[in-house]
This record gives sequence, C-alpha cells and structure tokens, in this order.
Amino acid sequence: MTKELNVGIVGYKFMGRAHSNAWLKAPLFFDLPAKPVLKTACGRQEKSLKEFAEKWGWENIETDWKKLVSSPDIDIVDIALPQNLHYEIALAAAKEGKHIFCEKPLSMNRKQAEEMLRVCEDHKVKHYLNHNYRRTPSVAFAKKMIDDGKVGRIFHWRCAYQQDWIVDPDFPLTWQLRKETAQAGPQWDLNSHAVDLAHYLVGDISTVSCLTTNFIKERPLADETTSGNLSAATLGDQRGEVTVEDAALMMVQFKNGAIGSFEATRFATGRKNGLRFEIYGSKGSILFDMERMNELQYYSLADEEGTQGFRLIQTTETVHPYAGHWWPAGHIIGYEHAFVHAVADFVSAINNDTIIEPNFYDGLKIIEVLEAGIESAGLKKQVVL
Amino acid sequence: MTKELNVGIVGYKFMGRAHSNAWLKAPLFFDLPAKPVLKTACGRQEKSLKEFAEKWGWENIETDWKKLVSSPDIDIVDIALPQNLHYEIALAAAKEGKHIFCEKPLSMNRKQAEEMLRVCEDHKVKHYLNHNYRRTPSVAFAKKMIDDGKVGRIFHWRCAYQQDWIVDPDFPLTWQLRKETAQAGPQWDLNSHAVDLAHYLVGDISTVSCLTTNFIKERPLADETTSGNLSAATLGDQRGEVTVEDAALMMVQFKNGAIGSFEATRFATGRKNGLRFEIYGSKGSILFDMERMNELQYYSLADEEGTQGFRLIQTTETVHPYAGHWWPAGHIIGYEHAFVHAVADFVSAINNDTIIEPNFYDGLKIIEVLEAGIESAGLKKQVVL
Amino acid sequence: MTKELNVGIVGYKFMGRAHSNAWLKAPLFFDLPAKPVLKTACGRQEKSLKEFAEKWGWENIETDWKKLVSSPDIDIVDIALPQNLHYEIALAAAKEGKHIFCEKPLSMNRKQAEEMLRVCEDHKVKHYLNHNYRRTPSVAFAKKMIDDGKVGRIFHWRCAYQQDWIVDPDFPLTWQLRKETAQAGPQWDLNSHAVDLAHYLVGDISTVSCLTTNFIKERPLADETTSGNLSAATLGDQRGEVTVEDAALMMVQFKNGAIGSFEATRFATGRKNGLRFEIYGSKGSILFDMERMNELQYYSLADEEGTQGFRLIQTTETVHPYAGHWWPAGHIIGYEHAFVHAVADFVSAINNDTIIEPNFYDGLKIIEVLEAGIESAGLKKQVVL
Amino acid sequence: MTKELNVGIVGYKFMGRAHSNAWLKAPLFFDLPAKPVLKTACGRQEKSLKEFAEKWGWENIETDWKKLVSSPDIDIVDIALPQNLHYEIALAAAKEGKHIFCEKPLSMNRKQAEEMLRVCEDHKVKHYLNHNYRRTPSVAFAKKMIDDGKVGRIFHWRCAYQQDWIVDPDFPLTWQLRKETAQAGPQWDLNSHAVDLAHYLVGDISTVSCLTTNFIKERPLADETTSGNLSAATLGDQRGEVTVEDAALMMVQFKNGAIGSFEATRFATGRKNGLRFEIYGSKGSILFDMERMNELQYYSLADEEGTQGFRLIQTTETVHPYAGHWWPAGHIIGYEHAFVHAVADFVSAINNDTIIEPNFYDGLKIIEVLEAGIESAGLKKQVVL
Repeated sequence: MTKELNVGIVGYKFMGRAHSNAWLKAPLFFDLPAKPVLKTACGRQEKSLKEFAEKWGWENIETDWKKLVSSPDIDIVDIALPQNLHYEIALAAAKEGKHIFCEKPLSMNRKQAEEMLRVCEDHKVKHYLNHNYRRTPSVAFAKKMIDDGKVGRIFHWRCAYQQDWIVDPDFPLTWQLRKETAQAGPQWDLNSHAVDLAHYLVGDISTVSCLTTNFIKERPLADETTSGNLSAATLGDQRGEVTVEDAALMMVQFKNGAIGSFEATRFATGRKNGLRFEIYGSKGSILFDMERMNELQYYSLADEEGTQGFRLIQTTETVHPYAGHWWPAGHIIGYEHAFVHAVADFVSAINNDTIIEPNFYDGLKIIEVLEAGIESAGLKKQVVL
Repeated sequence: MTKELNVGIVGYKFMGRAHSNAWLKAPLFFDLPAKPVLKTACGRQEKSLKEFAEKWGWENIETDWKKLVSSPDIDIVDIALPQNLHYEIALAAAKEGKHIFCEKPLSMNRKQAEEMLRVCEDHKVKHYLNHNYRRTPSVAFAKKMIDDGKVGRIFHWRCAYQQDWIVDPDFPLTWQLRKETAQAGPQWDLNSHAVDLAHYLVGDISTVSCLTTNFIKERPLADETTSGNLSAATLGDQRGEVTVEDAALMMVQFKNGAIGSFEATRFATGRKNGLRFEIYGSKGSILFDMERMNELQYYSLADEEGTQGFRLIQTTETVHPYAGHWWPAGHIIGYEHAFVHAVADFVSAINNDTIIEPNFYDGLKIIEVLEAGIESAGLKKQVVL
Repeated sequence: MTKELNVGIVGYKFMGRAHSNAWLKAPLFFDLPAKPVLKTACGRQEKSLKEFAEKWGWENIETDWKKLVSSPDIDIVDIALPQNLHYEIALAAAKEGKHIFCEKPLSMNRKQAEEMLRVCEDHKVKHYLNHNYRRTPSVAFAKKMIDDGKVGRIFHWRCAYQQDWIVDPDFPLTWQLRKETAQAGPQWDLNSHAVDLAHYLVGDISTVSCLTTNFIKERPLADETTSGNLSAATLGDQRGEVTVEDAALMMVQFKNGAIGSFEATRFATGRKNGLRFEIYGSKGSILFDMERMNELQYYSLADEEGTQGFRLIQTTETVHPYAGHWWPAGHIIGYEHAFVHAVADFVSAINNDTIIEPNFYDGLKIIEVLEAGIESAGLKKQVVL
Repeated sequence: MTKELNVGIVGYKFMGRAHSNAWLKAPLFFDLPAKPVLKTACGRQEKSLKEFAEKWGWENIETDWKKLVSSPDIDIVDIALPQNLHYEIALAAAKEGKHIFCEKPLSMNRKQAEEMLRVCEDHKVKHYLNHNYRRTPSVAFAKKMIDDGKVGRIFHWRCAYQQDWIVDPDFPLTWQLRKETAQAGPQWDLNSHAVDLAHYLVGDISTVSCLTTNFIKERPLADETTSGNLSAATLGDQRGEVTVEDAALMMVQFKNGAIGSFEATRFATGRKNGLRFEIYGSKGSILFDMERMNELQYYSLADEEGTQGFRLIQTTETVHPYAGHWWPAGHIIGYEHAFVHAVADFVSAINNDTIIEPNFYDGLKIIEVLEAGIESAGLKKQVVL
C-alpha cells in the first residue's frame, strides 16, 4: 500500500470523531489499495480544532474551509457538518477536483442536491453520501438475500426511526430544531436514512402521503457553543419557536407495487436510536433493528412446514459482508464500524474508478421523497413523484 | 347464582366455538350474578349444527334465526357470524328486547351501525361488541396505567395487525375477500380491532389518511361449504376478482394532539396473528404484542437514571385485570380467555343494568374511522372526521 | 360418543380446578372415544367441597376417599393432591380396578413408587402421571423433531425451573416447605418436571451430582386452612424450621453420552414459573421457555450458511401436536390446555387399551433420579444410578 | 499528555490485533495521563510479524521475546499469547521491571500463577489480567448496581459460556485441544472468564463440584502454521487424541451463602460466543448476554406491584461506565471496546500507581477454582477450596 490519499475534514464534533476514527481504522482491518492520510482538519474554533487535530493525528489545521478545498495537497474532502453547510463546500470541492465524502442528509433541498450532483459529475469526482446503515453487515446481507430471491416479490416495507432526545420540553432549541439550519426535523435527519434503506432494499418510490406534527412549539434558546452529541446548554430564560416538525409519518407506494410506511420521531420515550424495518415478501421476510445491528431476522417459506419461524441470524460470520474483517463469529461490532466499511469502499472506488453508492444521485432521490413528504403534509394529500 | 340467562347463538364455526367456550367457562372461573344457559344454537346446515349443539351442550337447535330471536325463552342473542349478517339480526333481536353479544366488526357501513345503535338504545337492550383484545389482562392493565398517568401526554400510537394467510395466490376467494360479504378486507377485519384499541387507549381520532392496495387481483373461487378457520377448498379452475383490499395503511391525528399509524395486512409472511401496538408518552411508553399477550412492556421516565429500560411485565399476577381468576403468576392464558372475560362482564352488565364497552356506540365510531379510511384511499387525501 | 367414563376426583384446590377444567373441555375440542363424566368430587372440608362440586358440575360429593375409590360407579380416580397423599389412594384405587390419573410428583420416595407401579400393573389399570408440560405443542413437537433426527446426537441438556414465591422471609411455612408433607423442596416439585422432560427428550440418566441449600432457615407457621395457590396466611408470631431445600442444582450424565444440568429454585426473583430448557446436538438445537410456551426455538446446521439462526417457531399451526384442535395459527393457548391434552390422551388410552406416558414407570424413574440427587447432596459426591 | 509509555507486544494473531487496536484507540476516546506508544512487536515468524507491525504501526519488530522484555525502551510488556507461554515471559518481564498486560487465562496451573504474582509484587510492577468482559459498560454497571444494594443478598449465580466451533468432528486438533498447550479445554478458556465475573459480581467461591466430558475423542492433526481465529487447516489424514475436555459443568458454593452454576462448552450448536449470566437476589435480579453486550436486564422488587418486570436497559448512556466516551445513547459498541477500556484503566493505574483489577492475584484465585474443578471431575466429588 504505497499510494496515499490525503484527506481534509471539515467539522470536528460528533461526526468529525466518527469519520476520523474510520479513516484511521479502515487500513488496519481492510487491505486498502491506498492509505488515507489524515492531512488537514478544518473548523471555526481554532482552540477546539487544534485539540481535536492533535488527538486524532490530523497533520494540519485550517479555519477557512475555502483554503482547505483549494489546497493542492488534499485528495478527499470529508464534509462532517450539518446539512446547511454541505452545498457550498461540496460545490467548491468538486470544482477543485476533490473527491467528496459527505455526511447525510445531502442538502437543504432538491435544487441544491441537483446542482451538487451535476457539478460532481461534471468534474468527475467521486461523491459518497454517508448513509452508513447500508454498510452494517446485517443490512448488506439483507440486500444480498433480497437480490438472491429469498424474499421474492416484496409486498411491504415498514420502518420506524424513533428517538426520544427532545421529549423534555426544556431541551434547548439546538440547530436541529430550526428550519434555517436543519431544513426539517426527523423527516430530514431520520427519514433520510430510512428512505435510503427503502430505496436500497425495496426500490423507487412513486407516491408519498405524509403527516407531520409538533408536540412542543417553543423551547429555551440554546447556547450553541456548548453543543455536543444531541445536547446543549440553554441561554437564560428566553424561548424561541421550534420551526421544524417533531415527528413525520409517511405512507408510500413503490414502483414495483409494494407499499410502505415510515415513522420518524424524536418523541418516542425509551427509544434512543431505534431504527427498525420490516420487509415482507412472497417467499420470505426480513426484520432489522439498528439497536441490535449484529442481528437480522429472516422468515422463509422454503423451510419445512412446522419449523418455519423468524430466524435470529447473527451477522458476525465470515460469510456476512464486512464481518470477516473483524472478530470471530459471535463477537459483535458497533455503530462506528459501518463508517469504517464506508471508508474502505470509498478508497477502493477512488482507486478503481468505480461508482460507490449511496452517492449524490441517491441523495437527490432521497431529498425528492422527503420534499414530497413535506409538500404532502402541507397539502394534506398524496403527492406523486 | 340462582338467576339464569338463556343464550341463543347464531353461527357455529370459528366464532361459534369461541363463544360457546366462553359461555361455558365464565361461571367456572368468575363469580357471576347469573348463570348463562346454552339454550339454542342456530345455523343453516342442520346436520353440522346438530353436531355442534351436541358437542357444546346447546339444548336446542334452530335453523331460522328469526325464530330464535323471537323465542320467549331467549334472553341474549349471540351473533357469531360475519359482518354482513349482523345488521338484520341485531335489529330484530333488539326489537324483541334481547340483549346482544355481537361479533366484530359491527356492520357493513356507518348507516347500518347508526341504526343498530339507535334501535338497541330505543329498546333498552344491552349491546356488546366483541373487540375481545381489550379484555386481555395486558391491554386492560395498559389502560389502567394510562388512566393512572403513568404514560403522561400521549405523543404516538403505532400499530400493526399483520397476518399472512392469503400470501399464496391460489388461496381461494373466500367470503372475506369479496366486498358483498365482507365490505372491506383487513381495513374492516383487522383495523376495526386496532381502531378500537386506539380509541380505548389513546382517544378519539380527528383525521384519517389511508392507503390501500391489492397484491393479488384474482383468485380461484372458494367452495364455501368447506370453509373453516381462514381456509376453504377451491371450486375447480374458475377465478374471480378480489373485491376488497389486501392491505390498508392509515395515518391519523387524535383530538388530543397525538398522531398515530395503523397497518393491516394479510400479506406479512411469517405473521400469523400479529397485532402489535406501541404508545409513547411524556412520562412513559407501553408496547404490546398479541402473540405474546401475557406480556406488556413498559418504559418509565420515573425510573432512576441509568436503570431505565422497557420492562417485560408478565400480566399474570392477581394485581392484573382478570388474571387472578385463572392460575398462579407465570402460568399463562390464551386467546380464548378474553372471550370468557367478555362474557363475565356482559353478564354483570345485564344483571347490574350498567353499560358495557365496547358497545354499538363504540362500534359506530370505529366504522366511521374505517369508512373515512376507505374514502381517503379513494380520494388520495386526508379526510376529516 | 356413547361410552362414558365416570371420574372421581380427590382434591379441589389449584389442581382440582385445573383437572376439572380438563375433564370438561377435552370432549369439546377433541373427538374422544368416550365421554368423561364428572361423577364425584372428594375432599375433607364439606362446605368448600360442595361449592366446588356445584361450580364445576361434579354430580356427587364424598368426604371419605376410601368410599370414593371403592364406589362401583367410578371408572377413573383422579388424584389431585399433594405427593404425600398419592401412595395410599393410588394403591387402594388400583386394587379396586380403577384407572388412575395422578398429579406429580409421583410419591414421597422410591419405595412407594415401586409399589404403586407394581400394584397398578398387577391390577391392569391405566396409570397416568401428570407431567403436563410434555403435552404442550412445543414440547411434543420438540420430541418429534428429535425423533426425526433434526437435532442429531445430543450433547447438552440445560434446564432451569425458577420461581420466586418464597423470597420474602415472612412467607409462611406451608406444606411445600416441610419434609413430612413434601419430602423435598424444588427438587421434588420442580425438578420432577425437569427430569421428566429430560427423560422424554434426551434419555436415561446414569449419574447424578447435586447441590442443595437453604437461604431461609425458619418461617412463620402457616394457617393451612387458608392456603391457596402458593399462598397462605400466617399463624401469629411462631416460627418453624424449613425442612426442605430452597434450591437444588444437579449435573448429570446420560446413558447416551450427553451431559446435563438442572437448576430448581424458589428464590429466583422475577421468575414466576420460569421453566426453560436448551438442547444442543450435532445437527441442531432446541430451546423452550414455558412462560412462552407457544414458541419453540430451533437452530439447524442444515440451513444455508449465513442464514443459520435460532428460529422462533410459533407452535400454533395444525402441523403442531394438539394445536389444530384449538384456534387458527397465531392464536395462542395457555397453561391449562396441556391438561386437556392429557385427558384426551388418557381417555383414548383407556378406550384403546394402550399405554399412556408418562406413567408410574416413568414416575419411578424420575423419583430414582431425584432421590439420587438428595443422596448426592448429602454425600457431596456423584451417585451412580 | 506529554508522558509516553512504550509498549512491547508479544503475539500478533487474534489477540495481537485486538490489543493493538486498543493501544491505538484508548488515547482517542479517553483522556489518558500518558500516551501509549506502539514500540515493538514480537513474534517468531518474521515475515508475518513484519506485515503486522507495519499495518498497526509498531515501530520495531523483534523475534526474540527475551530481547523484548529486557529492552530499556519498553515500559509495558503486552502478552498476547496462549496460556502456555505466559509464565516464562511474565516472570522475565517482571524481573526487568516492566508492567504487564497479560491475556487470560493467567497460566497453566496454580503453581505458575503463584510465582507470577509473587515476582510481580516483588518487583513492584503493575500486572493486569485481561478478563475484558468486566469492562463492558453492562457488566461494570451491574457491579455498581450490586454494590449499591439494588440486588440485595445474592442467592443465585447462573452462567453459561457456550460456543460451537468444534461440533464438526473433522475440525482439526488445534493447540486449544491439546493439554500441553492449553492445559484444559473450555474449563480454562471459557470458565476462566465466567469465574472472574462470578468473583467480581458475587464473591469468593468455597466449594466446587465439576463434571467434564469429551464428545469427540480424536481429530485430524492441525497445520498450526495456518491457524487463525479459532480455525486451522488439517495435516493429511492422521488423527490425534483430544487431550482436553469438550465441556465442563460446575456447581459451586460462595462464601456468602449464594450458590452458583457454570457451563462451558464448545458443543452448543448455534451459540457462537454465548456468554450469559443470571444473578438473583433478595431485592432484584440481573441478566446479561455477551452477544447483546450493550444490554442489561434488571428486575427490581422495589418497582410498583403489577409493573415489575425485567427491564431491558441499554447501557449506552453517559451514566453507564465507559459509555459516555463513545457515541450518543442507542449507538452501540462492540467486542473490541472493552479492550480499549482496559488499556485506558491500565495506563491510569500505572500513572497513578494504583492497583488495577483483575490482576494476577485475581488470576490466581480463578486458577484455584478451575483446578479444583478438574480435580473434582476426576474424584467425582465436591472439592473444598
């Protein structure tokens, strides 16, 4: 592995850590055709940035992302920031010929997404959108089972992505709860993941009906300087309006005749990061729960009568995607590992000049569905894509 | 227990057996104020009817339901038939002053339901609608917990009622699959239960959006004379059109501000009688799965930090509704027991002249939601109740 | 079904109810070759006995069991009493030529058991020992799977039967806690069931090592007149010695080379009637939990690589033993149903003059293992059977 | 973090990778008082060693462990080798004043363990024994709950550690299956972990009864040069004798009056790394399953009547030990993370000159129990410690 790929990362909070860890670990557990080098970390608060860079081994720091993306010693720009900052950085990076590893959701709206995709394609850079759940061994294996015909014709997609971090009405008005920074609430944050999985496993969506609601209309203002993983301090007594939805439900039709449902919420008391889906088909069914991500449930009509039942598959064996790179069967992996898989595949895609998915094209399709949902919720009727 | 209540049952198949069992067992496990007497069984096929009556101890048989409902020695008419036969019999029974124990769903449409309710009220007969799941110890205890404030303000209702008995495209076109006999598919059969539970546990529904679909458009004609529990033989090669939906999804708003989703299907491969619901509130959450009906899951924000988690409560203790009438804690009960609880409560309601729920008023409200759903699916937009 | 079999029952508490229910229900759900008639109920407290008989429909009552067993109008004697009362009644009944339906555990010791078996055989009466768990659909299906070779050579039996009803040190000294009435604690009460299942599913045991202990040495005396299902009032402040063990562990070797473990306790806080076993073999494995008795888990090495996993089989389909007599798939049954299955099989065995199992021969073998366990615990070494 | 601690590792296979990962990651996720430097990797096959060192960033390689342990630039010797190689290396390292991070099980026998402990103490080096499961957030939190009195007096410890990697009779005779390299089978490999957890959570053991067996007596010889994670190629047709047990059961008494059971096996078809334990006490109970290591079940008698049940706690919140260093609640960690926690605590213990547990003293106590088990199995009687 003599080749190197220099990475410049923008953002150093939750996702900055998760991405840094992935860049470091990928070459340790995968045989990569090129070695990612943690070249430059970029952020606005120099002191915190410096601590971050030292801890993770980023060689340089940079407080102006425009300098980062135009730097000749950068091959890959890793956008580990909220969605309101993706558009401008991605466009600039693509124009500089940098490959892009971008956090989800892709953008604030369809228009941005279209342009981001077009510019990347025009400048022939690789673009990867980090819907990381695709790269858990369980989900990747579910995809293989579906492709192998084990589920047959799919009838149903049923998905919930449930969290509970804002049930407390005094939880502050962080950037995730304001339209100007987040565009939408769980419809963007959570349903973007869910729609990606639905596209990947079931197929394209043709119609959307959506219902959104707000349970808490106003919240204390947040002291964003203190914000961390889904938390922040409040700024005195002042309150501001929550301008994104608290929960979003969708019912959809797929082009292949299946129907599906989505539920995304930050008000499901007891659910921390509860992404679960169910797929029912003419030959079998598949269930997944991200909080037990090393497991997959599978029901097969091909099993002998009387012995049919949902099998609890531990996707930790060498036959399962990615799993053989880690530990022996039964030794589970965690949330962060899917990021490592993404980095490994991204580096290979750059080296081999192949397409990696999900990418900005997939992201655009997701945004189209999410926007149709918001539109449907406003119109109180079904929207055709 | 010297008082007696003479029961006349119409129908002797799946529900005929389940009801007969309940009439027999209720006085054995509950101290009833009056003893139900299995007086007369009514059906059209005399031979099968006779066998049924002998087996279960019904004293008489009768092939004309009109004679049954007008017979002076009958106090209670038990309608254990498909929904297309409820209306006429219930009206006649009420006019004769008989108390009515009626299978669900209440009727074919709102108009019938309204009249059924009105006539029962006019004739001051007790009317009970057998949404039996309310009377599992788990559901009844969930209701108590909600009433006691343990869940707080409810944010979410999430419910699926999934079966798989018609996944095979050669499953015949039984009465459940034709509009003239069933009115609708799972929207009527399964979502009626689900909406009843939502009304009971969450509250009234204000808006409905619905999506229905058919996966299999035509099926072999059924030989109805052979029909049993969700099965039948086919009648040669001829096929007929499936005139009810195969699956129905709903998104709803409740008057109290909660939102909810429903999924009802006969195409969820691997799910036999899979009724599950989830309720999330500001103080706690509750989960239920009918296939594990002796269990209830409960998450409480009042639990000490770090030890919060979904508790798997076995609702088999004497403190749980109905459970103390059966066996010691940890000895589970089954599907049929909720019917026994219904009979016990119904007999008490008659004796004490109190209202039992769910009744035809509740049934009417359910039908309103189900009809709004069918209307919404056709219009592809939200319907306001 | 013109033939009748007159039943006389001795005992009218927990088991009296469970047995009465079974005699009543068996002909309703099974096509029996003879109809059990609830002829005579026998007990010592006339008032309670009379109420019991009236409620359940026993035609006569009798306070002297000797009269019951010698009565010419009795075909079957049902012994629904604690183990200290089985020996005398069973001997007398057998000598009168009555068939015997006997609660478990069989007797106080091996000597009684041997004689009970011998006398029954000498008088050619049917003898059934009510280890009811064998007749849950799940356990009966597990047996079939093992017989069909699905598990292969068995390596491991792992079983725990855990309850928690005497964790409170002020729970009174009921008959179950005194050697003169119970012979032993969970070793007799719970491990008798567990050993029966091991014999049934794995095979004969050749060596036993056992460890017993007492956590609470003295308890308040019990007011036995108030005793019910695992409960009783206390008699003032006086305390007496607990003369049976509180918990019993066993490690065993089977004749076929498998090894096994048993754990029986009344001190497993949170476990109400938690009987669970695991069987691991060269081709597959089987898991069972009585508190989810409608389920069976099965792992098969014959499943395709990558898709192997424990299948959660709902044993509610017509292909599963007994299940087809009840409700459609997915509609669960409860604790009491295995008693009904036992009655159905017992009536058939009498009618067809065939052997029913488990019987007193099986009971004797169980007692031999349990006694070897108590002996081993005393000697602190392995005992060879 | 200016201080550095130079690490020399011996062994570069499964544990070599797991340890290297831990040395690398600990400073990224924990604020360590000193930075571990991956100084020298040691092994016998130079080519493989070199690849390993390059991949993981070990600065130097060394094929003679004696040189490694005497090298002045090494502060910590990490023994990532099978148990037959611990003794000699640990003694030499301690005599050179190196701190020792040692894989489990500690040694081949009690005599070795005693000397290892003594020499480490004499030379005042830190000694850590890597029973890593203690440092999962769930187990560490269970310990806290017990110490806080939430379980009360402990009655029962019930533990199984089940794997299935040698069910195939043609699996080769790897070093784990020969007494000269492994000393014992699952009694050493698996029960050492289980006994460590029992000591940690319940207390000291006073008596042991043990049963061991072999299901497969001979196996094909292994080509050890190909051995990896629990696998190897065979060497032609030749077979050799399996000289360690295939399964080991133990029943124990604890000094505090609790009793316990252990089951360790490599023949539990379907169990990959199935370590589960149950603890039942007078106030509550705790259940753990390593394959769902981010979860802990807890039953509390302090919960309100009717709502008691086993709570499924996700130990991913900041209140749970170690968990706050990783990701937001609900984002799970994996097997390797406990190694990182061990490194973090070990580095702190060196820096602060405090004792870290488990150490060689704990390891000696474990070996005493394991040896007593082997002795008991031979004598077929209880052994008092």
